[in-house]
Amino acid sequence: MNKRVMVLGGDGFCGWPTSLHLANHGYEILIVDNLSRRRIDEEAGTLSLTPISHIDERIECARKLIGNVSFSYCDVNKDPLKLRSLISDFRPSTIVHFAEQRSAPYSMIDDDKRRFTVDNNINGTHNLCSAISDIDQSIHIVHLGTMGVYGYNDAFGIIPEGYLDITVNQTSEKSKILYPANPGSVYHMTKCLDQIIFQFYAKNWGIKITDLHQGIVWGAVTEETIKDPILANRFDYDGIYGTVLNRFIAQSQNNHNLTVYGTGGQQRAFIHIQNTTDCIRIATETSGNVTPGQVRIMNQVTEVFSVMELAKIVSKLTGANIEMIDNPRNELADNNLMVSNEQFLDHGLKPKKLNDHLLEDLMFTVSCFEERFDDAKVLNSPSWR
Amino acid sequence: MNKRVMVLGGDGFCGWPTSLHLANHGYEILIVDNLSRRRIDEEAGTLSLTPISHIDERIECARKLIGNVSFSYCDVNKDPLKLRSLISDFRPSTIVHFAEQRSAPYSMIDDDKRRFTVDNNINGTHNLCSAISDIDQSIHIVHLGTMGVYGYNDAFGIIPEGYLDITVNQTSEKSKILYPANPGSVYHMTKCLDQIIFQFYAKNWGIKITDLHQGIVWGAVTEETIKDPILANRFDYDGIYGTVLNRFIAQSQNNHNLTVYGTGGQQRAFIHIQNTTDCIRIATETSGNVTPGQVRIMNQVTEVFSVMELAKIVSKLTGANIEMIDNPRNELADNNLMVSNEQFLDHGLKPKKLNDHLLEDLMFTVSCFEERFDDAKVLNSPSWR
Repeated sequence: MNKRVMVLGGDGFCGWPTSLHLANHGYEILIVDNLSRRRIDEEAGTLSLTPISHIDERIECARKLIGNVSFSYCDVNKDPLKLRSLISDFRPSTIVHFAEQRSAPYSMIDDDKRRFTVDNNINGTHNLCSAISDIDQSIHIVHLGTMGVYGYNDAFGIIPEGYLDITVNQTSEKSKILYPANPGSVYHMTKCLDQIIFQFYAKNWGIKITDLHQGIVWGAVTEETIKDPILANRFDYDGIYGTVLNRFIAQSQNNHNLTVYGTGGQQRAFIHIQNTTDCIRIATETSGNVTPGQVRIMNQVTEVFSVMELAKIVSKLTGANIEMIDNPRNELADNNLMVSNEQFLDHGLKPKKLNDHLLEDLMFTVSCFEERFDDAKVLNSPSWR
Repeated sequence: MNKRVMVLGGDGFCGWPTSLHLANHGYEILIVDNLSRRRIDEEAGTLSLTPISHIDERIECARKLIGNVSFSYCDVNKDPLKLRSLISDFRPSTIVHFAEQRSAPYSMIDDDKRRFTVDNNINGTHNLCSAISDIDQSIHIVHLGTMGVYGYNDAFGIIPEGYLDITVNQTSEKSKILYPANPGSVYHMTKCLDQIIFQFYAKNWGIKITDLHQGIVWGAVTEETIKDPILANRFDYDGIYGTVLNRFIAQSQNNHNLTVYGTGGQQRAFIHIQNTTDCIRIATETSGNVTPGQVRIMNQVTEVFSVMELAKIVSKLTGANIEMIDNPRNELADNNLMVSNEQFLDHGLKPKKLNDHLLEDLMFTVSCFEERFDDAKVLNSPSWR
């Protein structure tokens, strides 16, 4: 198997550090991106706390300090023929697919954003599968899904890695089925649609696919992005793209209260961005474990916390107060999340725990706040009721 | 509830007779269509056996002989803003959604057709849901699904109407879940994706949705289309758009063998086109039975036959010989299909049975064959292996 990996969406929050991490491990990386996340910042008035360098600077610096990384501009939704020619020319053994609009709040802003999210994410995923079924059916797709495909239904017990053991009542037949989809936003819905596309392409053409259901990512730096300010990753703290822990950090450093949506009893799974990059590498290295005809699904998570537990951790470290506000999201007030992540642990993933590493993150971000923090952005989540 | 019904895809094979049927029952009908089926005929070199009159002639004749029918050109995938303004202006109580590329073989021809089918069907369905969530959440969507979403998995027993009673093994929790999707083509896959979109919009905004999983349609005429040649419905007999019974009829009338794919042991569900129109009317009239938050799913089928049983019926009526050919489709050689259709029977549907009515269909089509039958079209199905 060759060491060429194409990273769709390789300019984004997970895509960029993953590209660097794989390059650091000897892979030849072709980043394919339409730079849409940069445009969304302009349109939505959001801004990464860390300054993001121009894509050409990023690539130049990565080639100097890390390894073999290059870039091709392509919109995988709108330009499927270019995607095909990039795949045919580069001949990767693995394509990592991050090229989706990844914010749940963004996908719930209005009709235009709902439609953009569905059009972009579904056609992008399908264009990739369709291209591979023609060009080279041995290419392994590694796709970033989300824990949100499972919903938060306590009654089904420990969330398995993608497939649920059931008994069909009328026949007493035992079966393993794709976990019933239960998305909580248009964004999460697109990841549920992706699953059915993958299932069909795996079944009909035997395409090798790994779908990674990731928890909420936290953390500002990875071993590779820390090497130079030009390699810095995004740090979003706004109500649209900022995940909950980043928002708390931003609030704590600016003498704001930590705003907890609803009761704070929502339990969610988390993972550090460094572990995200480890997981993608592990998934890439273990393509031999994908059973022909069936998508391999792995839960890319390391820890579970309730939103209130997170707020208390940050409060204890920083002295910030906690404030409860109405939940803009249409979700259960409380849930009890248990989730299996054995596959990654078996493959040697070393979880980077929140209680051990949060302080580093806080320290790193302090320096950035003075110039670029914008108060008004923290509470700008749309309502989805 | 007003009697205004918008029919998306109302120029097509199911849409046109349904529009006439509803108009005949006193509904005010606005057909919304991009006339794509006419263009596909030109592109694919297919042709309806029955001549199809110009859309303006169709509408004029329908207004004279049937009832209140009008037409607006709109591509519900590519022009969501026009769709929104049509809905806002017309203010229907029901929108019947047929506006999807509906041929499984067409969806499997090549990359271009796979992408067209996904782009067209998914964005069309989602644009509609997104529009309704903004404009008027009380509008009832009646959507044509397909029995193909269930796949043909004997082990799960009688196919229920959309929801399967299961027990989750690890918790012993009993639950009713959306029947696990098991599509057999890109086309069928899009109807599985539609289901997840509907599920989310029903859950998050309480949109009233009825999804009708229809069997294979047969039959050349309905009570309304028979009234004038200008109102005639399509009759496709080619390997791409022609369903199995239509192909057998066309073959029998031209002294060809009836070509059975594979073993002929594939059992499938069927319904006459007249019953299709009855079912859509029943679904429209019973929107009060839709439980808020949950999509109502009904199986729109009346009978089950194996492909070989169908061939034998046609052979007996016409004297044509049966010939087995390699199956171009990637499907089980045999299956045993049992399917529940109690909801429509409870609402008074009178099944139009094949053994009682096939001869009428044969007689009607005879007159059309001399001029328009094209030998080469019957066996032009693409392979999906």
